[in-house]
Amino acid sequence: MNSTDMDTIVEDRLISRSEEPVNLEMPFASLREFVTPNEKFYVRCHFPVPTIDPTGWKLRIEGAVSAPVEFTLDQLRAMPRHTIAATMECAGNGRSHLEPKVKGVAWDIGAVGNAEWTGVLLRDVLAHAGLRTDAQEVVLEGADRGAIKEPPRPPNDINYARGLPMEKASRDVLLAFEMNGEPLTPEHGFPLRAVVPGWFGMASVKWLQRIVVTTQPFNGYYQSIDYTYWEERDGMPTLVPLAEMRVKAQIARPHMGEVVAAGQEYRVHGAAWGGEDDVAIVEVSTDAGATWKAATLLGEPVKNAWRFWELDWTAPADRGTYQLMARATDSAGRIQPPHRIAEYGTYMINHVLPIRVEVR
Amino acid sequence: MNSTDMDTIVEDRLISRSEEPVNLEMPFASLREFVTPNEKFYVRCHFPVPTIDPTGWKLRIEGAVSAPVEFTLDQLRAMPRHTIAATMECAGNGRSHLEPKVKGVAWDIGAVGNAEWTGVLLRDVLAHAGLRTDAQEVVLEGADRGAIKEPPRPPNDINYARGLPMEKASRDVLLAFEMNGEPLTPEHGFPLRAVVPGWFGMASVKWLQRIVVTTQPFNGYYQSIDYTYWEERDGMPTLVPLAEMRVKAQIARPHMGEVVAAGQEYRVHGAAWGGEDDVAIVEVSTDAGATWKAATLLGEPVKNAWRFWELDWTAPADRGTYQLMARATDSAGRIQPPHRIAEYGTYMINHVLPIRVEVR
Repeated sequence: MNSTDMDTIVEDRLISRSEEPVNLEMPFASLREFVTPNEKFYVRCHFPVPTIDPTGWKLRIEGAVSAPVEFTLDQLRAMPRHTIAATMECAGNGRSHLEPKVKGVAWDIGAVGNAEWTGVLLRDVLAHAGLRTDAQEVVLEGADRGAIKEPPRPPNDINYARGLPMEKASRDVLLAFEMNGEPLTPEHGFPLRAVVPGWFGMASVKWLQRIVVTTQPFNGYYQSIDYTYWEERDGMPTLVPLAEMRVKAQIARPHMGEVVAAGQEYRVHGAAWGGEDDVAIVEVSTDAGATWKAATLLGEPVKNAWRFWELDWTAPADRGTYQLMARATDSAGRIQPPHRIAEYGTYMINHVLPIRVEVR
Repeated sequence: MNSTDMDTIVEDRLISRSEEPVNLEMPFASLREFVTPNEKFYVRCHFPVPTIDPTGWKLRIEGAVSAPVEFTLDQLRAMPRHTIAATMECAGNGRSHLEPKVKGVAWDIGAVGNAEWTGVLLRDVLAHAGLRTDAQEVVLEGADRGAIKEPPRPPNDINYARGLPMEKASRDVLLAFEMNGEPLTPEHGFPLRAVVPGWFGMASVKWLQRIVVTTQPFNGYYQSIDYTYWEERDGMPTLVPLAEMRVKAQIARPHMGEVVAAGQEYRVHGAAWGGEDDVAIVEVSTDAGATWKAATLLGEPVKNAWRFWELDWTAPADRGTYQLMARATDSAGRIQPPHRIAEYGTYMINHVLPIRVEVR
């Protein structure tokens, strides 16, 4: 998987984007492992990491259910368990490359990772409580809590919370207590987090403490103000909560600004992922988008996980600055847009990103 | 209706709160007429007043209807017409009295008026188009259009638009072409505006050009970002679009800072209104809220219109500053809150407002 012509040392350590709350990203140029090691998996927090004593901890299910029910961690661990792969990407991944600059954590391209998650299915937990026929959404509430500073904002401290449509909640959402075979760390949501396969990371609520089944759409702060975008419907922009990830290929090597030897072979490599559909095609351009070549997709597709890809490139004999690009198409035929879509605001950054390299 | 002891000249002219867009309010101390004259009725605009040629103008009905349909002004005028009273209050009326200061037009207490509106029922217009069984909301779109400057904002110009739940749209919403027996002026929405009885003014879309029946909730800018408030549901704040007006009594005279003769009789008077329920009780306190006396409600209740009230007060013999207050209760038992509710943000300002008067 390594490029054949490495002339740059890439650190393996997470890069800090903010200290309180903790926000860390992977140096994407260090991409090697199909399953991202826990210590290389990006961390996204909205509030200070809550300290949770697992002995007193319970998960409460309430709202439009036959009867509210609580689960201890041992009770959840005794239920049928499932291990699934899921690539998770922060909805703001790539934000630092947007022009003009926008608000939010200034992620490079490493707020993405792929892990194996072990836990119980949300639908099994909901079945214990019994869904009422008027149930419409499933709201996941974390223990992380704090104040929102920018208007329009709720006046008091809020817990992080996101709603899921019943269709998704009843299908493949996992409540995970393990990540790559180890208990969750505090930063990754100990003792229990959601994993919403195919969706941007904001849906995979950490430090789960409560699940509320609602009979009407939940318009919490992170559902109606933050983590939303504008979509034209009937000729009118309407605000939509972010959900599925958008198809995207990222080049790991060469990285932005890398020096590449003139006239030499270089193995361009990276990863591609999408929403709930598999990646079907990855193409690479080494001439700033004028022509495209199909990259080789490595291994077999793994549902909801990224796909590694590579392409051998002969660097030009002429020295200078060159632009490499990658673009993915999913099995539903969706392709990355060539340019930024303004309606996406500060999220869903999946337009084709040129990587400038120096050929010497 | 005039106070018995007028020592202040109150102008009858609208007060300008901004020039572009035009925002004007009534000097509430000049309250005399049960039906507010057109030239004293407050004006609220979000964008420049559109210039509309009535000969080319059409109202288009589309979306979840059997067949899209268009109406000329003559066709609407030929339909069964209705005249209704409706008191309309801007959702930000009273904003300049909030502490701490909040964003928005700095209204005193005159962004409210009561008019007789003539037009056709929205439900009659919808019946012409034929509602589909999956119809959920009715979005009213105005011809007024412009850019939103504050994030989170749609990237391009938008038209002012608001959605109504089907229940309200099918009941008593009027599409008005006359206001107090005269054609609408440009500032009031010529040639056609909505009048949504009992709701804050933002629902009564002016310069109507299009009605879109939707099959899912409409989350336009003025429905999801602006003209919303936070409501606690299941222990989580959720963003709710403003709708019904909140019960409220306002003192017209004495006005804030008015000088009142010591030991003399003074007729305190004002108006009270609510949402879709009648005003049942107005109480007045002349001792900063320590004791309350029932005011006399004048005339008979008129559905969806304000109710005038008065109370004779003997000003104290001791000179000094006194606080007068009024509070209303509606027929559903809802009463004005004593203090500001933070969740309401910059809207729904119906807590009891003390009026300071100088007794000399």
